[in-house]
Amino acid sequence: MENNKAVNYTDHLKIVMVNTTKPGNLGAAARAMKNMGLSKLCLVNPRNYPSAEATARASGADDILAAATVKTSLAEALSGVDLVIGASARQRSVKWQQLDVVESCHEAQKTIAEQGEVAVVFGTENSGLTNAELDLCQILMTIPSNPDYSSLNVASAIQVFAYQNFTINTPTTFTPNANPPAGNAELQGFYQHLEQALTHLNYFHPKRPKDLLMRRLRRFFNRTTPEKEELAIFRGILHSIKPFK
Amino acid sequence: MENNKAVNYTDHLKIVMVNTTKPGNLGAAARAMKNMGLSKLCLVNPRNYPSAEATARASGADDILAAATVKTSLAEALSGVDLVIGASARQRSVKWQQLDVVESCHEAQKTIAEQGEVAVVFGTENSGLTNAELDLCQILMTIPSNPDYSSLNVASAIQVFAYQNFTINTPTTFTPNANPPAGNAELQGFYQHLEQALTHLNYFHPKRPKDLLMRRLRRFFNRTTPEKEELAIFRGILHSIKPFK
Repeated sequence: MENNKAVNYTDHLKIVMVNTTKPGNLGAAARAMKNMGLSKLCLVNPRNYPSAEATARASGADDILAAATVKTSLAEALSGVDLVIGASARQRSVKWQQLDVVESCHEAQKTIAEQGEVAVVFGTENSGLTNAELDLCQILMTIPSNPDYSSLNVASAIQVFAYQNFTINTPTTFTPNANPPAGNAELQGFYQHLEQALTHLNYFHPKRPKDLLMRRLRRFFNRTTPEKEELAIFRGILHSIKPFK
Repeated sequence: MENNKAVNYTDHLKIVMVNTTKPGNLGAAARAMKNMGLSKLCLVNPRNYPSAEATARASGADDILAAATVKTSLAEALSGVDLVIGASARQRSVKWQQLDVVESCHEAQKTIAEQGEVAVVFGTENSGLTNAELDLCQILMTIPSNPDYSSLNVASAIQVFAYQNFTINTPTTFTPNANPPAGNAELQGFYQHLEQALTHLNYFHPKRPKDLLMRRLRRFFNRTTPEKEELAIFRGILHSIKPFK
């Protein structure tokens, strides 16, 4: 099941955009979807579709845009759908069941795992989904955001959902570092010092190209996120090389 | 520390956009930042800045755009920065230290917790950051994406980072449901049936407005994600009410 996640989502999850007024947002949404492996787009009463502006903003995702289905009502768009998730950036006064994006993605996965169909619905640009539209949804997906400026661009909201949906099963690990790490300025200074020392040692030659080897050395040191103390040790080594000592 | 997260980020994390060519992307980036509580924007050699198009796309985030600092080189933009994170949607052939967005946000938080300054750098639209620009970064943040279409719009990439950064400390819980949940069509049918039954019982009157109460009932049932079996129980109850039985 886990290994077929991408296939499942492409086949059983669709994005529904309701009363979208700006064609650029249609194109941007198609691009955001394709970036994250989604392909099923349904447009309810889009203004100016198809249009050159939408296609331009879709960039290489014009195939998603061209394959979009167009409906005249949200109810029609939701025919055959088992789980309807409505997107909102703000808390609503009359309360629907509200989940964040991560929780909503889990609910979508559950439904898809049970062979169901999922729709994620995004409202018109200025006001989002109406209460009547939300009545057709089982879950209100609230995108966490700045309470003083919570209205995301509709294509950006789709990007956030699609990204979270794509990454939801990718756990990340984090090993905290007890000692303070070296800052960027310190690191850049060290690399400069290292390059000087290696040049002095005649280490570089045509078969040991400086650019490539310095990049690999930078990569080596950056990978370990050197602590200040560790960098001090290496600086000591460089200073012990003539003519630095 | 945790409670001051938003303030910390606003003060100690900046977004750097390098050689941005489309003014719409500058505005969209400012909006994405403000949506997620970020405010420090630095532009390296922006084309057409300031411009009416950028301001229009910024929507209510034109204050972020207007307050952006403009530099002529990435090195200048990174002066005083301790941790530089470069964004990329694709894997690079010469390998820098690569982290995903979640891991990159953790690294940024670590640096900020240690009183450091963080910059997250986004390259030009068509090709992203050059190798020379990445050499100035300690971490390459790779945005997980469809390997066949991995190039995100630059403002969308900023949106993804800003969203992840905003939500990174918000753990979500998920309680799996062992029994199959009712589908949307089933639920909508049930609500219609419920409304008919309550109307028949003269339950609704001016002080019990139908729209409001039906919405609250929908919310009640939706919140629990009813199982098919549970809905069958309620359908049985409704059928026991005259004239339904």
